[in-house]
Amino acid sequence: MSSIHLADRMNDIRPFYVMDLLARAKQLEATGRSIIHLEVGEPDFASPETIVSAGHSALDSQLMHYTPAIGLLELRQKISDHYRARFNIEVPVNRIVITPGASGALQLALSVLINPGDEVLMTDPGYPCNRHFVRLLEGKAVNIPVTSETRYQLTSDLIDQYSSEKTVATLIASPSNPTGTIIDKDQMQSIIDTVARQNSCLLIDEIYQGLTYETESYTALSMTDQAFVINSFSKFFGMTGWRLGWMVVPEEFTAAVDKLAQNIFLAPPTLSQYAAIEAFTEKTMEILEQRRQAFERRRDYLVPALKSLGFEIPVDPAGAFYIYANCARFTNDSFVFVNQLLDEVGVAITPGLDFGEYNASHHVRFAYTRSIPVLEEAVSRLKEYLKNF
Amino acid sequence: MSSIHLADRMNDIRPFYVMDLLARAKQLEATGRSIIHLEVGEPDFASPETIVSAGHSALDSQLMHYTPAIGLLELRQKISDHYRARFNIEVPVNRIVITPGASGALQLALSVLINPGDEVLMTDPGYPCNRHFVRLLEGKAVNIPVTSETRYQLTSDLIDQYSSEKTVATLIASPSNPTGTIIDKDQMQSIIDTVARQNSCLLIDEIYQGLTYETESYTALSMTDQAFVINSFSKFFGMTGWRLGWMVVPEEFTAAVDKLAQNIFLAPPTLSQYAAIEAFTEKTMEILEQRRQAFERRRDYLVPALKSLGFEIPVDPAGAFYIYANCARFTNDSFVFVNQLLDEVGVAITPGLDFGEYNASHHVRFAYTRSIPVLEEAVSRLKEYLKNF
Repeated sequence: MSSIHLADRMNDIRPFYVMDLLARAKQLEATGRSIIHLEVGEPDFASPETIVSAGHSALDSQLMHYTPAIGLLELRQKISDHYRARFNIEVPVNRIVITPGASGALQLALSVLINPGDEVLMTDPGYPCNRHFVRLLEGKAVNIPVTSETRYQLTSDLIDQYSSEKTVATLIASPSNPTGTIIDKDQMQSIIDTVARQNSCLLIDEIYQGLTYETESYTALSMTDQAFVINSFSKFFGMTGWRLGWMVVPEEFTAAVDKLAQNIFLAPPTLSQYAAIEAFTEKTMEILEQRRQAFERRRDYLVPALKSLGFEIPVDPAGAFYIYANCARFTNDSFVFVNQLLDEVGVAITPGLDFGEYNASHHVRFAYTRSIPVLEEAVSRLKEYLKNF
Repeated sequence: MSSIHLADRMNDIRPFYVMDLLARAKQLEATGRSIIHLEVGEPDFASPETIVSAGHSALDSQLMHYTPAIGLLELRQKISDHYRARFNIEVPVNRIVITPGASGALQLALSVLINPGDEVLMTDPGYPCNRHFVRLLEGKAVNIPVTSETRYQLTSDLIDQYSSEKTVATLIASPSNPTGTIIDKDQMQSIIDTVARQNSCLLIDEIYQGLTYETESYTALSMTDQAFVINSFSKFFGMTGWRLGWMVVPEEFTAAVDKLAQNIFLAPPTLSQYAAIEAFTEKTMEILEQRRQAFERRRDYLVPALKSLGFEIPVDPAGAFYIYANCARFTNDSFVFVNQLLDEVGVAITPGLDFGEYNASHHVRFAYTRSIPVLEEAVSRLKEYLKNF
């Protein structure tokens, strides 16, 4: 018999380093210290009142039993309608799967695609859970170093360069976490063509869809029906704690995804689904547009303010609510740096290490999820602290 | 480059066969047919009003942001208190992890334990997702045929017999789905000792804890702190659609489980957690005890009624809300049989195939999740139909 041990995969799966920072930040707060939280990737707004109200109604109607594994038909229909209304495309309901957060969508997509040893291309820096899901399934994440030269995104050239006979999928994100950069339509088309030519599969993270500040949001679904397109109610719709996402699946994978969802999740949270039906009404969309504008104003304040402090931000973020900043002027170890910032001036941000390894020690992420007066206070504290550098 | 294909694991992961039956049942209902649902494993009761009321309060207080990955400290403390109050044992909060359903708990436990090729012992019949989670992780589920002779449970002898040098874990369930049988304390101690002697790991499904009809519920945690013990708010607490469970983890695995939960789930649903805090109050417990008694009355009606129709039920179920019945007198293909019952008399039950392969074609599962008048109507319809056999 084997002795009790941790599975090997656990050696390769990292915690979010920012979690320790967050825990320490809360300890400091408990002692009365003022901490400004720019580390957590969640909007500071509560969920729109229309959605909260739909939650109350669902509770009153005792809508709290299991739903189908791939979600309520009514919600899936609303999402299909949303694609038609907002992006002028037809996405058939049978390709739409509701998931327990976008995390659930990512796990489903990778689980139906990856065999042990198969490779999935993705950016470094990128959302860290991507590579951990691949590892969970005994696949291999190929972390492709990206720089400001490609706006921290993959290109057709990079995909060609890093592909092998083991490559089964490429994962891209637009807008991206942690860099806030967008893949423009030409670039997207080129990536779609490259991946199709390779006869591998494209996974597209559109979790921050709707949160763009310079160009209209678009969806890659208007260019291809052969990609797994992952979305979320957490970010644009402001429903983080409700744990609800969705995925549009290529036709030939729908049965497999349904079967797997039945087995690993049973179903997404019921109340969240009933509440999310309200997410696409005109009234909710008005609230969300106001919030988008608020995020835009915050970005427009914080990016130049950080630059003037000495952070390098070579690509202005055009979406999500993140700024990926080079802090090499101040430190060679961004992990130590963020801990110092917390201790010395009570500003909490995320170290580059949480998004990969490439140039991680020279980068940090700011989440502009606080109001402008709070951001001003953060900048003021940073200025005071960094003048010594 | 590989061509686009389904991962091999998808060949081994089965859908719930009852889902097709359920879909067809709903079609029949849409045409006006009366269908009696005894197939779905969820209580017919709504969530207790105390819990619903806590849900409203959480919405009013805008408690809808992310919680820690392993759940709200306050809820984990309530669970620790519950173990002390109900079972007179100390379970430290740091070993308690809140999960998105018991499914989430099962996935976390297996993911931190299993390497590719590792074997996990479990019963056939059993809850089918168990073996699918093992397959997802490239492990091997060893499905041990069990009969009424061992009350459909594993024994020390069976564990010894099926263990190999690849065995890393044994998974047991008490009360069990689909058989409703319980592992008594002596048997549990013997299993714990056997698995400890093998130096492998024990996973114990206590999801139906609280729903016992002949003996007091107990927890294996009173005998060992070295097992992963999985529980749920779905069944006894009547919170299926809220998707919330918990797990008690051996001390040395807590860090790994936390790290993995951060990555694959981010966090369990927030509203569900705030609502579940109310699950342990005296008032809620009174409601749940009344429901337990209602399930007991249903069982006491349905078991003898099915026997008198000709179903064999060699072990009276002592827990959960399931009856695992041998239908060999009527059919050699229980899958065909359940479909006939649906078509002919509008009674929906689950085929044995959904719980494994051993003797599956001779078994069906009844869930007594409907009121006694409805159960009487079901028995009357079955009687009329089966008189021709």
